[in-house]
Amino acid sequence: MSSDRVLNAAVLGATGTVGQRFIVLLSQNPMFKIHSLGASERSAGKPYAQATRWKMSEQMPEAVRNIVVKSCDPALYEGCDVVFSGLDASAAGDVEKAFLESEFAVFSNAKNYRMAEDVPLCVPVVNTDHYAVVSAQRAARGLKKGFMVTNSNCSTSGLVVPLKALQDKFGPLSRVIVTTLQAISGAGYPGVASLDILDNIVPLVPGEEPKMEAEVLKILGGVSSDASVCSPLQDLRVSATCNRVPVVDGHTECVSLEFAGEPPSIDAIKQCLREYTCEVQALGCFSAPAQVISVTDEEDRPQPRLDRNAGAGMSVTVGRIRPCPVFHVRFTLLVHNTILGAAGASILNAEYAAKKGYIV
Amino acid sequence: MSSDRVLNAAVLGATGTVGQRFIVLLSQNPMFKIHSLGASERSAGKPYAQATRWKMSEQMPEAVRNIVVKSCDPALYEGCDVVFSGLDASAAGDVEKAFLESEFAVFSNAKNYRMAEDVPLCVPVVNTDHYAVVSAQRAARGLKKGFMVTNSNCSTSGLVVPLKALQDKFGPLSRVIVTTLQAISGAGYPGVASLDILDNIVPLVPGEEPKMEAEVLKILGGVSSDASVCSPLQDLRVSATCNRVPVVDGHTECVSLEFAGEPPSIDAIKQCLREYTCEVQALGCFSAPAQVISVTDEEDRPQPRLDRNAGAGMSVTVGRIRPCPVFHVRFTLLVHNTILGAAGASILNAEYAAKKGYIV
Amino acid sequence: MSSDRVLNAAVLGATGTVGQRFIVLLSQNPMFKIHSLGASERSAGKPYAQATRWKMSEQMPEAVRNIVVKSCDPALYEGCDVVFSGLDASAAGDVEKAFLESEFAVFSNAKNYRMAEDVPLCVPVVNTDHYAVVSAQRAARGLKKGFMVTNSNCSTSGLVVPLKALQDKFGPLSRVIVTTLQAISGAGYPGVASLDILDNIVPLVPGEEPKMEAEVLKILGGVSSDASVCSPLQDLRVSATCNRVPVVDGHTECVSLEFAGEPPSIDAIKQCLREYTCEVQALGCFSAPAQVISVTDEEDRPQPRLDRNAGAGMSVTVGRIRPCPVFHVRFTLLVHNTILGAAGASILNAEYAAKKGYIV
Amino acid sequence: MSSDRVLNAAVLGATGTVGQRFIVLLSQNPMFKIHSLGASERSAGKPYAQATRWKMSEQMPEAVRNIVVKSCDPALYEGCDVVFSGLDASAAGDVEKAFLESEFAVFSNAKNYRMAEDVPLCVPVVNTDHYAVVSAQRAARGLKKGFMVTNSNCSTSGLVVPLKALQDKFGPLSRVIVTTLQAISGAGYPGVASLDILDNIVPLVPGEEPKMEAEVLKILGGVSSDASVCSPLQDLRVSATCNRVPVVDGHTECVSLEFAGEPPSIDAIKQCLREYTCEVQALGCFSAPAQVISVTDEEDRPQPRLDRNAGAGMSVTVGRIRPCPVFHVRFTLLVHNTILGAAGASILNAEYAAKKGYIV
Repeated sequence: MSSDRVLNAAVLGATGTVGQRFIVLLSQNPMFKIHSLGASERSAGKPYAQATRWKMSEQMPEAVRNIVVKSCDPALYEGCDVVFSGLDASAAGDVEKAFLESEFAVFSNAKNYRMAEDVPLCVPVVNTDHYAVVSAQRAARGLKKGFMVTNSNCSTSGLVVPLKALQDKFGPLSRVIVTTLQAISGAGYPGVASLDILDNIVPLVPGEEPKMEAEVLKILGGVSSDASVCSPLQDLRVSATCNRVPVVDGHTECVSLEFAGEPPSIDAIKQCLREYTCEVQALGCFSAPAQVISVTDEEDRPQPRLDRNAGAGMSVTVGRIRPCPVFHVRFTLLVHNTILGAAGASILNAEYAAKKGYIV
Repeated sequence: MSSDRVLNAAVLGATGTVGQRFIVLLSQNPMFKIHSLGASERSAGKPYAQATRWKMSEQMPEAVRNIVVKSCDPALYEGCDVVFSGLDASAAGDVEKAFLESEFAVFSNAKNYRMAEDVPLCVPVVNTDHYAVVSAQRAARGLKKGFMVTNSNCSTSGLVVPLKALQDKFGPLSRVIVTTLQAISGAGYPGVASLDILDNIVPLVPGEEPKMEAEVLKILGGVSSDASVCSPLQDLRVSATCNRVPVVDGHTECVSLEFAGEPPSIDAIKQCLREYTCEVQALGCFSAPAQVISVTDEEDRPQPRLDRNAGAGMSVTVGRIRPCPVFHVRFTLLVHNTILGAAGASILNAEYAAKKGYIV
Repeated sequence: MSSDRVLNAAVLGATGTVGQRFIVLLSQNPMFKIHSLGASERSAGKPYAQATRWKMSEQMPEAVRNIVVKSCDPALYEGCDVVFSGLDASAAGDVEKAFLESEFAVFSNAKNYRMAEDVPLCVPVVNTDHYAVVSAQRAARGLKKGFMVTNSNCSTSGLVVPLKALQDKFGPLSRVIVTTLQAISGAGYPGVASLDILDNIVPLVPGEEPKMEAEVLKILGGVSSDASVCSPLQDLRVSATCNRVPVVDGHTECVSLEFAGEPPSIDAIKQCLREYTCEVQALGCFSAPAQVISVTDEEDRPQPRLDRNAGAGMSVTVGRIRPCPVFHVRFTLLVHNTILGAAGASILNAEYAAKKGYIV
Repeated sequence: MSSDRVLNAAVLGATGTVGQRFIVLLSQNPMFKIHSLGASERSAGKPYAQATRWKMSEQMPEAVRNIVVKSCDPALYEGCDVVFSGLDASAAGDVEKAFLESEFAVFSNAKNYRMAEDVPLCVPVVNTDHYAVVSAQRAARGLKKGFMVTNSNCSTSGLVVPLKALQDKFGPLSRVIVTTLQAISGAGYPGVASLDILDNIVPLVPGEEPKMEAEVLKILGGVSSDASVCSPLQDLRVSATCNRVPVVDGHTECVSLEFAGEPPSIDAIKQCLREYTCEVQALGCFSAPAQVISVTDEEDRPQPRLDRNAGAGMSVTVGRIRPCPVFHVRFTLLVHNTILGAAGASILNAEYAAKKGYIV
């Protein structure tokens, strides 16, 4: 199929905050038409505008207001070319499996299948090479055209981008310590209680640290020589500490890292990050940012309110790049947690898949 | 002189936010009577209530409302036994020197003399042993009874408390990486602009990182064998990354550390922190906390709004103590940045000095 | 019974935010001993420290940590002299009735019985004269010693204090328009979602406006000549608009009002508010504030963070008293919504009841 | 001159927050080209990117980064067709007068000339009929093509829109009481100190209340029969109480109002607001919103974070339209304070002027 055909898209978990972000982004994307919206039984049967407590700063797109929400049964989604899942992990396991087995192209934002060895865990500006395992995935699961690609945890998304650029240029990394300051939108709605976060910090994001520590290794790794499975890195050690802060959108991450080999200079690091490019740019994908990494020399940047919209939320901003007295270099990065960190990544993964002919 | 006499106290920089905190704490402290208030020429001559834009949640103590503010000339402070300085660094250099040379006991919260080798940089629950250099300080500067003791940067204050406990029990540390989430009150008034911090993080606290990295080494170090100077640690490497967050009071710090020798178990670390005691407690100093380190097992604590007042702001709360995949252990601590991190430390330093006969 | 005996107190709804505030205040009050803690079946049987997600800035009092929470069955509360209810309205209706009929002295913070004509709706610094209906309440309900007193909605509590002072001095008011800016703690936990209130205002507090508009009339009214029922005002019109704002504690209220008769001067109004006193002060009740109304002449006060703790949260701060181009006078007031606006009022109501011999 | 020519625009006060908003909006507006940027002597001579601490969420437009900032001397602005002033009131008086006398078309956001009787105070979706005094303004001041139009205070901008719609349809209003909850961006940078607004409200916006109370009368009034001066309303009384709240952008206003004559029904009011249209829409001005007033029936709207971008910041959202127990109707409105409330209004005023041939 031509990569230029407008694809019919379904959004599962459409009433949640990730689902709402999918809808905002898809409504601005010429490659997709929102065809179906899926949610829980409680919402099914209602027009979307009525089923949803809309929490985006952007107005709800007119085109979806009257779409009748369906339950998440694959039989109801005939005519959809791609299925985006913004489902909670509690529902995603069964539902996504059902859609996959029904031969849909599934792009999931949930954690359930991220670590499955035949499922690409793909940050689209980092490791589209992992799509190589899709054939093996289909073979192993007896599928003809269905397949699943997941995107990473929101905090992971920001971290792997500069790490990938550095690893490609300067060779393997050995140790990374990262501390995050994560926005409340990552927790959905109602999510974080205001009494927990006004004039306060919560020094825990449940489940986040092990996810980050594992996902980085898979994303920065490769695929096996027979392209049957993903091959996570073995020799990189990652320590993540995750905090929730009173910011609406945009995760800030403070990173110290050590190279396995001879470390490059700070200037070389800056240049490497600035020059980093990736395949989705070369292919001209609609959601690919012009600049994958926006390197700032202003000493008090990146800041969530000022930088989260860089590259329409698809760029990672990296600043405060300086020597680390303990490791080799430290820096602070910012990623839009619901765009590159969630819905935007999923959509760009689908654009890539379409361009490369995976969606059939 | 008896340690039980009520001491006449002066507060320099009395109209600023640190000065205001000094006044709140001193007004509740039976050991001191507020005798004189010093500030800039602009405020001098006015009653305190009129010279000050009061920003504390506690009401301004009645006893200070009508005290006429003086300029910071030592000749005007006759009758004062101790001088607390909450001056800005821009003024503190000359003024504190003048008071010292006028034979006052000076307890400074400013950075100017912290790294002078004959001046104790003392977090009173950590290293009162550094008072040993006071005699040498007097000798070197030709003083009879005057001396100066500084307290540390607010972020340093929180960090050194558990590090000291661990170092005392398990031997030297080799590497520490710390990321802070610092409250706005640390920047004074007007300080941080609201446009910079509402729905935002500022990933820089100007000047803070080098201060933390240097002060930790001095505080955790000892004094020379002839008690003439302080001897900072040589073999500990510290990397600090400092962020400003939308929290009013209370600095949160995420720490990963490595021991030089064999690491203890997580349980042994918890027990060590819980059992840590110090000299100001043994002496029964009024401001000494009952528990120096409050160890919490709740997985989402410490939190600034809930824990900053532990031990009336003089305890450090440590939580999330767990293994670090990169170093040996990681944890999150909370310190009240204007109490143990500033005015409270200074006052407890003075209480200690009085008990030990330094104030003559 | 002597008013000086320490009374055994029960707190119903003890695990909620109002219940937590009751516990903090009672633990500092020499007149009461916390005897029993009641909550839902889910919490019953657990030690309080385990049953509760503590959200107060003050540490949980040691004395309650190990009290085993009970269900809200009056039979389990033998030995309690007073029962404080911080129950949600959904539970309060039945439970409070059961305790009342079991002959307990019930002090309720819930809305359920506030408008019952034989139940005092009492802001203790305003209308303790409404206790006159207690005899009739007992008679009508066949009770010997049990009775119920409610306190008002948190926003009402702040508003009626200056209105009462003005009405007493200058005669009836005719019209009041009030707009509130209410703190999140009023909504309990988890209460307001952070996505609804960070960088945001919610222009609705569900159910609040009709409560305010009705409660003001009852509180500012009197009792019938035979002391059988409360007699709400007939001729005052009140319009309330209620907003939720990103403040932890402290409701701000902007008031414009019209006197029925000749309006006093602004100076006379200020003097009247400053001089206002009430019966709980005269009786020396422990929780009565020294100054009922704190009038401020600073043009940018009251402010929640700076003024909510005036009078230990039992004073109302009134500022910006100035002519109104539409009515006679306008001003801005601040009330601590969980102290004078909730638990503190309830406790002071009980102190008053004890002093006056109602608790038998 | 044709209204379709692209106009060369200057922005005075270009480095401030209003100036930054002008730049963002102008860079997206096909009718204008940013030609010159003016600021204080301190900034003059520097490239804009270097002279400015950029505080917008939108990235600084590439086209302005290298424009060299000029001082505000009219002689330096040759070639500019329109001059937008975002100057502080302290500078605007002299500078705007100088540009006016140099025959520029001046669109000012400052307060200095708003109440001058021959200067239109124009909210472009409300009272473009006031442009009728421009001829008299030129005549009185001896100008050939220069003229000045001001826009209103940010809070006034929101209020007058529904008032105008109601007055046009239902006849004069007699009394309005309004309480505002204003965003921090209205105070510029650094503006409000974070210690004043985190977990806090400031119940005063200096100078704002008298401005609102006077500007409403001028805007809702007409022009004299000879079109020589503006004629403010005489019979409307307005009481404004202004608060600063922790919101970045978007002023919320709670309004109660009384009609001079028979009041319409709530439904008629809603319909009137929904149907309101204005001249800039009819002319097809680029910045005119499709819907001037967005009426919402959701009971907890408008909210700043969700509604401030309605109509690209040029619509006013009105909700909670309901009867008022004291006056006739009350409602809550939201206006984007730096778009319709400042730079956006000024730009739309200029678009209107161009369309109508005032810019020559």
